[in-house]
Amino acid sequence: MEVAQVLHMNGGRGETSYAQNSLVQRKVISITMRIAEEAITNIYCNTFPTSLAIADLGCSSGPNTLYAVSELVKVVDEVRRKLGHQSPEYQVLLNDLPGNDFNAIFKSLAGFQENLKKQMGDGFGPCFFAGVPGSFYCRLFRAKSLHFVHSSYSLMWLSRVPEGLEGNKGNIYMASTSPPSVLKAYYMQFQTDFTLFLKCRSEELVAGGRMVLTILGRRSEDPSSKECCYIWELLAVALNEMVLEGIIEEEKFDSFNIPQYTPSPFEVESQVKKEGSFTIDRLEVSQVNWNAYDNEVYQSAAFEDGGYNVAKCMRAVAEPLLVSHFGEAIIDEVFSRYGEIVASRMSKEKTEFVNVTVSVTRKG
Amino acid sequence: MEVAQVLHMNGGRGETSYAQNSLVQRKVISITMRIAEEAITNIYCNTFPTSLAIADLGCSSGPNTLYAVSELVKVVDEVRRKLGHQSPEYQVLLNDLPGNDFNAIFKSLAGFQENLKKQMGDGFGPCFFAGVPGSFYCRLFRAKSLHFVHSSYSLMWLSRVPEGLEGNKGNIYMASTSPPSVLKAYYMQFQTDFTLFLKCRSEELVAGGRMVLTILGRRSEDPSSKECCYIWELLAVALNEMVLEGIIEEEKFDSFNIPQYTPSPFEVESQVKKEGSFTIDRLEVSQVNWNAYDNEVYQSAAFEDGGYNVAKCMRAVAEPLLVSHFGEAIIDEVFSRYGEIVASRMSKEKTEFVNVTVSVTRKG
Repeated sequence: MEVAQVLHMNGGRGETSYAQNSLVQRKVISITMRIAEEAITNIYCNTFPTSLAIADLGCSSGPNTLYAVSELVKVVDEVRRKLGHQSPEYQVLLNDLPGNDFNAIFKSLAGFQENLKKQMGDGFGPCFFAGVPGSFYCRLFRAKSLHFVHSSYSLMWLSRVPEGLEGNKGNIYMASTSPPSVLKAYYMQFQTDFTLFLKCRSEELVAGGRMVLTILGRRSEDPSSKECCYIWELLAVALNEMVLEGIIEEEKFDSFNIPQYTPSPFEVESQVKKEGSFTIDRLEVSQVNWNAYDNEVYQSAAFEDGGYNVAKCMRAVAEPLLVSHFGEAIIDEVFSRYGEIVASRMSKEKTEFVNVTVSVTRKG
Repeated sequence: MEVAQVLHMNGGRGETSYAQNSLVQRKVISITMRIAEEAITNIYCNTFPTSLAIADLGCSSGPNTLYAVSELVKVVDEVRRKLGHQSPEYQVLLNDLPGNDFNAIFKSLAGFQENLKKQMGDGFGPCFFAGVPGSFYCRLFRAKSLHFVHSSYSLMWLSRVPEGLEGNKGNIYMASTSPPSVLKAYYMQFQTDFTLFLKCRSEELVAGGRMVLTILGRRSEDPSSKECCYIWELLAVALNEMVLEGIIEEEKFDSFNIPQYTPSPFEVESQVKKEGSFTIDRLEVSQVNWNAYDNEVYQSAAFEDGGYNVAKCMRAVAEPLLVSHFGEAIIDEVFSRYGEIVASRMSKEKTEFVNVTVSVTRKG
């Protein structure tokens, strides 16, 4: 599987689209926003650039795509007004893999820009937008051209499925039953990828440039810890059932592994230090319920079925990977079973995603 | 009709797509390429920038999208090798209206970049790509951020259908039977739009930056000259037939006008001079047969039907405009009739598009 060619959030605006099923990811952006706001205020006030370039890496397509960058632009504009400065020209660079639905983003931009202008009033901007397709494990932007990089819930995706996962039978991700060689293979791929990411960004950011990265991760030092692996283990349960019923071939199942690594804060920290281009300003951990609608009052009873919501959310994220490996035919069935399995677990225990956020500065 | 929301070349890769029906436009880029090559060599050799930003405005989606920019990058690379310079970082900015199929472009980019790298060999690049959606009658890029702007067969599209075309009954564009008020309304809209275009680009280009624009136009000073209006007059004939047969409502037909203006070299020149930010280096006129397959040897008999080819080409360009005004139902019928009408005319006379190319330099 060529991850860069296959991986993308479900496009469009339909029932199974990421646009309709990305409330968890929005909550994560919201929870961690104050860290990003602090960082961008810092770079702005240290340099007062006439042109401020902000990149969002793994921007996806939907209501979240422009959420973070618009908040960041607003914060800078508030500060520059208070200080009586002229507005910088904003350059917003939206990156994701080439399979992302950029057409949908681009069609929504005119309305978004108009609203932003209205909200911000006279003296704001201009604010220019561009889409930058490609893997963030490569160089994407000109040297020293970025002031701020934001990325939320993207960097846990690896550039490829690690090599050496043959021993991971019965699992599709790291699990308590995975042999140490599998855990090691996953961790090595994360180290390689994350180091390359830091190196590329260090070339693209100006000296003093800032970066706030939120990664789906874990608190524990055990990479097969339930807090990060359980969500995939339950998907493996659904797939396993279908293997037993002869709907999916066993070899097909055994050769499928999710190209993801959910690091601990310590792993993130040590990789940043080892790579050497950045100093760490903050390293924080937060959590969000699997079911984004948890604790919220919604009119529709549909939202009460947490298992269904979580399955839809995971489908919006993982469907292209599954289709590429198993074909389209099994997808509805997989996620229907998954929804039931997830619902049953959620009724018995607390289920949360753990978010590792690191705020760093490009050394001068 | 909101032109910026409606106008786009037919997307995808199918039978009626622009990608499959844009050989004429490719020929035009090819014919005028030496002018663009001269201009980009000039800006490169005058400044030897470490980072070279090239924008293609109205890039469309298909084989032409990356054709011009890749030729331009190759020319610069050849020159810098001869002179023993290090490669600049190339920044390629692909602009079109938000309805353009950017997804298709982005999916083809990885393969394209790999090929380019292979062709160019060691020491080339890096070359970064971005998609920039929006009307080129607005600012699209940061101030003083571009070195070179290329645009081919895009600037004849107006930002809107001119006001005051009520007297243009029986026509869908300027025609020999259009009253002077209609010709004037079209010309005024062109003046407004082209001036705005020049102003925006003058802010975005560096001093000494270059721009090569090829516009579908005419040689004559008569704006209703057959050389530029006939292609639309024949489409009006097809539509008129369908009005007479009761398939299209007369008021629908009468209220439809193409948002295009095909200027003369003199009109282009005088507008550039009037706006004042640019000096003119070259102003040239060329022509290309309506049927791109003319004079070429093709295996398939399908290509021999010139009327069919031209109708397909025009459909790939104009279908979204027609659908937005008349609905989808009539489209096949319109272009089937149009193909026959065009074929009949082509057998009796020489039918060519006229291209006006202007090469300009941003004043220092």
